[in-house]
Amino acid sequence: MVTTVRNWSRRSLAAFGFGLVLALAPVLGAFEPSPAIAQTDPLPSWNDGRTKTAILDFVRRVTTEGSADFVPLEERVATFDNDGTLWSEQPMYFQVLFAMDRVKEMDATNPALRDTQPFKAVIDGDRAALAALGEKGLLDIIALTHSGLSVTDFDAIVRKWLATARHPRFDRPYTELVFQPMLELLNFLRANGFKTFIVSGGGIEFMRPWVPSTYGIPPEQIVGSSGKTIFKLNDDKPVIEKLPAVEFVDDGPGKPVGINRFIGRRPVFAAGNSDGDLEMLQWTTLNTGARFGLLVHHTDAVREWAYDRNSEVGRLDKALDQAPQRGWTVVDMKNDWKVIYPFQK
Amino acid sequence: MVTTVRNWSRRSLAAFGFGLVLALAPVLGAFEPSPAIAQTDPLPSWNDGRTKTAILDFVRRVTTEGSADFVPLEERVATFDNDGTLWSEQPMYFQVLFAMDRVKEMDATNPALRDTQPFKAVIDGDRAALAALGEKGLLDIIALTHSGLSVTDFDAIVRKWLATARHPRFDRPYTELVFQPMLELLNFLRANGFKTFIVSGGGIEFMRPWVPSTYGIPPEQIVGSSGKTIFKLNDDKPVIEKLPAVEFVDDGPGKPVGINRFIGRRPVFAAGNSDGDLEMLQWTTLNTGARFGLLVHHTDAVREWAYDRNSEVGRLDKALDQAPQRGWTVVDMKNDWKVIYPFQK
Repeated sequence: MVTTVRNWSRRSLAAFGFGLVLALAPVLGAFEPSPAIAQTDPLPSWNDGRTKTAILDFVRRVTTEGSADFVPLEERVATFDNDGTLWSEQPMYFQVLFAMDRVKEMDATNPALRDTQPFKAVIDGDRAALAALGEKGLLDIIALTHSGLSVTDFDAIVRKWLATARHPRFDRPYTELVFQPMLELLNFLRANGFKTFIVSGGGIEFMRPWVPSTYGIPPEQIVGSSGKTIFKLNDDKPVIEKLPAVEFVDDGPGKPVGINRFIGRRPVFAAGNSDGDLEMLQWTTLNTGARFGLLVHHTDAVREWAYDRNSEVGRLDKALDQAPQRGWTVVDMKNDWKVIYPFQK
Repeated sequence: MVTTVRNWSRRSLAAFGFGLVLALAPVLGAFEPSPAIAQTDPLPSWNDGRTKTAILDFVRRVTTEGSADFVPLEERVATFDNDGTLWSEQPMYFQVLFAMDRVKEMDATNPALRDTQPFKAVIDGDRAALAALGEKGLLDIIALTHSGLSVTDFDAIVRKWLATARHPRFDRPYTELVFQPMLELLNFLRANGFKTFIVSGGGIEFMRPWVPSTYGIPPEQIVGSSGKTIFKLNDDKPVIEKLPAVEFVDDGPGKPVGINRFIGRRPVFAAGNSDGDLEMLQWTTLNTGARFGLLVHHTDAVREWAYDRNSEVGRLDKALDQAPQRGWTVVDMKNDWKVIYPFQK
């Protein structure tokens, strides 16, 4: 039953974002391409083998002048899904866990909350009751926690949560549960002239406070889902306020639509991990010229999690079936990655 | 009456965009900041005086380390309106003229068009009849010319029009009617570490085919109005099709909303020319730290056009009243600019 909530949560939460952009840490430099790693291995956390070779070979071909596969600098666009591709997404999408924590925090100043569902279920940690409330319950939670204040205030709330919340299994800040091999891939692509973008079903404003300092990707290169906002001038103080209404869901077929709107060119390289990334990989690779489609397959139940076709979170089914015919590279997390998280180095 | 059509046309057309991104000319290099102009005048087409001094002084202050007004590199965001700020917008918005030409072109392959209004009025050049048809007529023209095909096909149509159409007064391609002093300002800001963005009420996909090569601004730094699109996979060929439905109008209060969504940080520098830019300038300048608001005032009836408070196209009224109290710099086109267009150099 819990999975029902998880299942809905992605698409529902996907419709909300918050906050103006302020990085969690000083970001000067974080936006600059990493220096090319000349002599040393650019992907030290990747085991040698078919996957690593495919990545290195592709980047060499598209960046070699005169090569038939050469791609001009300004066309080197790489798009990355976030949940399950750049950081973990279990036991459920981190943005959902944020919303749950937010309800509990609001309970302290608004005791009346605990008298009504679905808030009572969240405050009591009653997952069965929560699941029984289904989508309507979650949408109420989202409306309560993701709207009714300015994007600036919401940004502060997200940053405070990120600084204090701990992941239930690893007891570490959520921003430490990013994939070390993927951080190396982002740096390697940027060192080779690629402009890297996030294209996530997650809320665009939920990501902005931490993505710049965590991935080295600037706020204007984050494509995501969003809720409607409105501009107001209060006593000569300009404010952008978040409304409880869906604006855009950047998931599934919404990803190529979002890529076209925000980026305006078709990627040369795209990475995802679920069927929500299927259309983004199709839009990227079913095109002329050298293109690269990558799927992160969660196969490591010991170091991370193992799930695919039957998971409510990050279900990987159709995309896994299409990978062979499309020529997409499937990362076997258990065998292709030396380490999962930076703290395991 | 014609002005009625013009009046509606901005907001209506604002809701439509087309095309995937392909620059009109090779764009390699066009996206790179221009080399800093060390010894020579960075703004040669600007007459010496208060306006030029204000620009030079502002850029010096925000780029001087240790200065109280210093702005870190990653926060140097500059936003520019397009119609009337970077290129002309008379006798009416160029995107409206494109739509009219498009109807005439479609008439050749679809003779039945001339039997129905508003298309008959456009084909006959009957402005009075067109004006009488008002908004409904224009929306029909937009629906006909701006939807029902792929963004890729629309991009090709825009590029073909730009390559062949001539401005009625100057008998030159529309892309030659850009303001030389503003091109110098864009280059000067980029040479000083600013990331330059377009934030226009015009269609995002109408702008992408020519903005990169004309202004040196890449597709992903163009914020504009848009129509809804949908992703389709036809016989394994991915297509993004344009629908006859408004998605977002990037004008007036929509500009700060668009800036928040696409760029994710408040600009340090914003330039516009009409009341449609009022909220963008408020969002930019009513903030802590050194900020610059610029308004291009069309005061040159001989070399360009002279209009402000009573114009249906690019009306400048409220913003002109607020300029003194807000500390915005108003460009007097007639007296501040040595030349208007590049071909006059």
